[in-house]
Amino acid sequence: MSAWLAEAPNRNMLWARLFVDELARGGLREVVIAPGSRSTPLVFAFAECPAITVYSLLDERGAAFFALGLAQAADRPVAILCTSGTAAANFLPAVVEAHYGRIPLLVLTADRSHELRDSGANQTVDQVRLFGTHALWSVDVALPEADPPAVLLRSLRTLAARALAAADGMPKGAVHLNFPFRKPLEPVAEAMSPAAIPLGPENGAPSIRVLRAAQTPSEAQIARLAEVLQAAERPAVVCGPRCPDGDFPAVVRALAERAGAALFADVLSGVRAGDSGLAGYDTVLAGKPVLQAPDAVIQFGAPPTSQALTDYLNAASGPRLTVTADGVWQDPDHRTTDWLWADPTELCRVVTVRLAAREPSVWQTAHRRAAQAARKALAEVRRGHFFDGGAVAAVIEALPEGAQIFAASSLTIRNLDQFAALDRPVRVIGNRGASGIDGTVSSAFGLAAAHPNAPTALITGDLALYHDMNGLIAGHRLGLKLIIVVINNNGGGIFRRLPVAKFDPPFEELFVTPHGLTFEAAAGQFGLVYRRPGDEAELRAALAEALAELRSVLIEVITDSSADLAVRRNVIARSIARAATLD
Amino acid sequence: MSAWLAEAPNRNMLWARLFVDELARGGLREVVIAPGSRSTPLVFAFAECPAITVYSLLDERGAAFFALGLAQAADRPVAILCTSGTAAANFLPAVVEAHYGRIPLLVLTADRSHELRDSGANQTVDQVRLFGTHALWSVDVALPEADPPAVLLRSLRTLAARALAAADGMPKGAVHLNFPFRKPLEPVAEAMSPAAIPLGPENGAPSIRVLRAAQTPSEAQIARLAEVLQAAERPAVVCGPRCPDGDFPAVVRALAERAGAALFADVLSGVRAGDSGLAGYDTVLAGKPVLQAPDAVIQFGAPPTSQALTDYLNAASGPRLTVTADGVWQDPDHRTTDWLWADPTELCRVVTVRLAAREPSVWQTAHRRAAQAARKALAEVRRGHFFDGGAVAAVIEALPEGAQIFAASSLTIRNLDQFAALDRPVRVIGNRGASGIDGTVSSAFGLAAAHPNAPTALITGDLALYHDMNGLIAGHRLGLKLIIVVINNNGGGIFRRLPVAKFDPPFEELFVTPHGLTFEAAAGQFGLVYRRPGDEAELRAALAEALAELRSVLIEVITDSSADLAVRRNVIARSIARAATLD
Repeated sequence: MSAWLAEAPNRNMLWARLFVDELARGGLREVVIAPGSRSTPLVFAFAECPAITVYSLLDERGAAFFALGLAQAADRPVAILCTSGTAAANFLPAVVEAHYGRIPLLVLTADRSHELRDSGANQTVDQVRLFGTHALWSVDVALPEADPPAVLLRSLRTLAARALAAADGMPKGAVHLNFPFRKPLEPVAEAMSPAAIPLGPENGAPSIRVLRAAQTPSEAQIARLAEVLQAAERPAVVCGPRCPDGDFPAVVRALAERAGAALFADVLSGVRAGDSGLAGYDTVLAGKPVLQAPDAVIQFGAPPTSQALTDYLNAASGPRLTVTADGVWQDPDHRTTDWLWADPTELCRVVTVRLAAREPSVWQTAHRRAAQAARKALAEVRRGHFFDGGAVAAVIEALPEGAQIFAASSLTIRNLDQFAALDRPVRVIGNRGASGIDGTVSSAFGLAAAHPNAPTALITGDLALYHDMNGLIAGHRLGLKLIIVVINNNGGGIFRRLPVAKFDPPFEELFVTPHGLTFEAAAGQFGLVYRRPGDEAELRAALAEALAELRSVLIEVITDSSADLAVRRNVIARSIARAATLD
Repeated sequence: MSAWLAEAPNRNMLWARLFVDELARGGLREVVIAPGSRSTPLVFAFAECPAITVYSLLDERGAAFFALGLAQAADRPVAILCTSGTAAANFLPAVVEAHYGRIPLLVLTADRSHELRDSGANQTVDQVRLFGTHALWSVDVALPEADPPAVLLRSLRTLAARALAAADGMPKGAVHLNFPFRKPLEPVAEAMSPAAIPLGPENGAPSIRVLRAAQTPSEAQIARLAEVLQAAERPAVVCGPRCPDGDFPAVVRALAERAGAALFADVLSGVRAGDSGLAGYDTVLAGKPVLQAPDAVIQFGAPPTSQALTDYLNAASGPRLTVTADGVWQDPDHRTTDWLWADPTELCRVVTVRLAAREPSVWQTAHRRAAQAARKALAEVRRGHFFDGGAVAAVIEALPEGAQIFAASSLTIRNLDQFAALDRPVRVIGNRGASGIDGTVSSAFGLAAAHPNAPTALITGDLALYHDMNGLIAGHRLGLKLIIVVINNNGGGIFRRLPVAKFDPPFEELFVTPHGLTFEAAAGQFGLVYRRPGDEAELRAALAEALAELRSVLIEVITDSSADLAVRRNVIARSIARAATLD
């Protein structure tokens, strides 16, 4: 690549190539580009760089969410690039999600040069620190020069290395680099007299590395966690969304087992997959059971999706320990008594060894039986009713080992958390940082891009699908396959769970917002196969067919949110009745 | 309304009702609401307020652009409201446009209370100053209290009055009010002990008024403009986008006439309508004519759309005077020598009277003839070719007096500026503040909402339509009628005009971004009538039919951007040939 750098035709291209070269050396593998003119030098540099795959998408909002899905599924930083103006503003929703979801995202915006800023020039807006507190780091990059000093050229390599390190740091998140360019933006030749161009190591290694320490648990942390678990009679281990992957799921299960703890594993935690015994607690706890409250809580990951679990934990007395490697303060009920900032996997491993063996725990057994009762109640009710929760469960059951599932926010993720027993290793991902319903389709296609050979499904409600309908373009445009299951209950069914449901008007019109849309036409416009099953058997058939299909598929399940809520209550009531029988 | 205020059931509703009451007294007439839970108190207060029309839309990005279109067409502030989280982030693109387009927009976001902020609570993001430099004023409103002191309650009225005044100020723009609410969010009763509630005047007048001075031109301003016009041999008067309405168009034409000036009226200026002689200069000047450069330039409104005009003006010597009431610094080429910050209409009026009468001007005549030649060349070429410019001209010709036209950014607005002769009073509006292609459909529906009885058309390219496709929902959902004409050239045809067109790859794939989409399915999904005319006669027929239709209509014109560019060059070449003959 040295010739590529040494022979850059003009200052803009030199800037762009140096920066992109270091990104490639640093491990960046994907960039998502929305078309525009001011970004031309970076577009060319990315297109010319063989190590980086370029995805081209037309709506910046969706493009950024596509990158989020890709970054989450691939577990590495992904870059997004757009031109100047409101294009950059359309990145904000995904940048906010990257911030709270701790997803590494490199946000590259092209900008006008300084003489055009705040001057009334076309498509020129104030992009400096445009993302405010939602970017971990923000840089207004130096304008390219024809005779740059050596330190300025070196700083472009630093910029790339540092941006990657910051985005993939502790915590992870979005980094914003704003690149001003002056015309000509194309790779036309100009006379230049740069100082020595830093070409980087010949073997393609990074010019600058960032080597980090292990977050080894301290003796004080180990002793505190062991002491709390040992002393507790009713310990609870809670794994919220986005727990570490790797060995963590097995290790935290072993810890809970050794400690005689009740284990609550969120559907987004990564800990539930492979153990269908872990599903059902939301149903149990929503029924206000006679299960005693815990007397110690150990919390990993983000706050759990389940409101019933949250309420249950809030009834607990005793210590609450929250374990996190990156020190992000996630404790909305302000109940954490001890923060343990260390590698969660290592901490679990060491403490498990240290804990004394314990008698089989009545407490643990009571929780397991109650969850089992909830799963049986669901199976019973599904035989007689086709409802949103059953549809969600059916989708999960149909997917093979290794599948990826993107869960939309709002009712979908709650249904998954309540009803999805994951008896095989599948990965469930959602935008649970800010829990928006925006960018859903695009994020799901990002998963498909990360692992094109893994079956990938999106489960979504109608509002989330509508919100990012133009994200459907990714299937045909990028040759990606996604199975989309939309549970269409004609509006915001989740509001029926809230107290506001008793106040109509304006409840139906301004909260539920029924729209009457179905999505067959959208499937047609974007070249997706479309199916509308009328019961669970038809849904299973449609899913089997979709798995064998080469194109993306949109499966629309029409439900009634009032009826679904009644069925949900039925499942809860039956699970309480069953649990009582078991006792 | 005093009972409505005095009997507010709880603190949240008292807050919301007081604030909304003062907005209504201050003249707010419309709010656009995207559904959510945290915003419940404000949703109820707006729904209960008879003076304010509530529009409910499902995508916050589109909802905000709908408000922008409505505010521009109605020429008054419009409010938007959403719940907490990325919902608010989706407002940013429209907030940026409001800032640079000087459109009064009241941005209301609901937020979590302070104990939930930055705590990991669901759907909780940092909304304080979320819009950064793009809001004229940002307030994190006081949390509702059960026993508020009188001054706090009065401050809610002040907040409403001041927010309206700031948004509709000098300059106009977006004001952001962030309202934290704690549960319960519904209008359930609680015990309260508020101090005296400020009920406001019984006749419904505002509690607080802001009375502003007239921007009366000073003697120095009058003398300077008169002196420059008197001394110039080749004066040019340029009316860019968003000139004042009311008497300004007539008054500035009279000034140009009296001064013997060449008048350039942008299609978005409001000055071109009603005088078809004003169209054609872009064609003339794009042909690099022998017309001499001006020796004085008087500029009103924002910088003009036409690049050819900009280049031509930049060849001028002599003074350049820029007249603006609001002191916004719009001068991207940094050529203004005199800023006149005063009421443009008054200034024109006074200076016209003061100017000495002048011989008929050869300079003025040369420009008029050249523009006429351009119009004739267009008519000639249209007889043989169906191309984007001709289609745009045909749409304009088909619309009756009083019609509203929303022009999408990118190629559409340039085609309109070049080819649209407005021989009858119609209003052309575009988002020319930041010139994004986002929010186009929604903005156009906003025009229809402002004047439901005026025929309203949107002219757009395919990328802009795709970008805001879900904005199509407004027709059916809100009962609005819009005639949409999409010139579908399968991607970013505007890039063919740029030097980057010579560099393929990556030109076609990453700049033109052909997508192969057509929009019949989208029309079907959202209940629009769909037509696809194949020539100008069919287009005229489709437009006549659309004007008589009760529903919204989508007319798709398929063109070829390479061929269109060639036809455009043909029009330019012929207009030069014709102008030469005229001399």
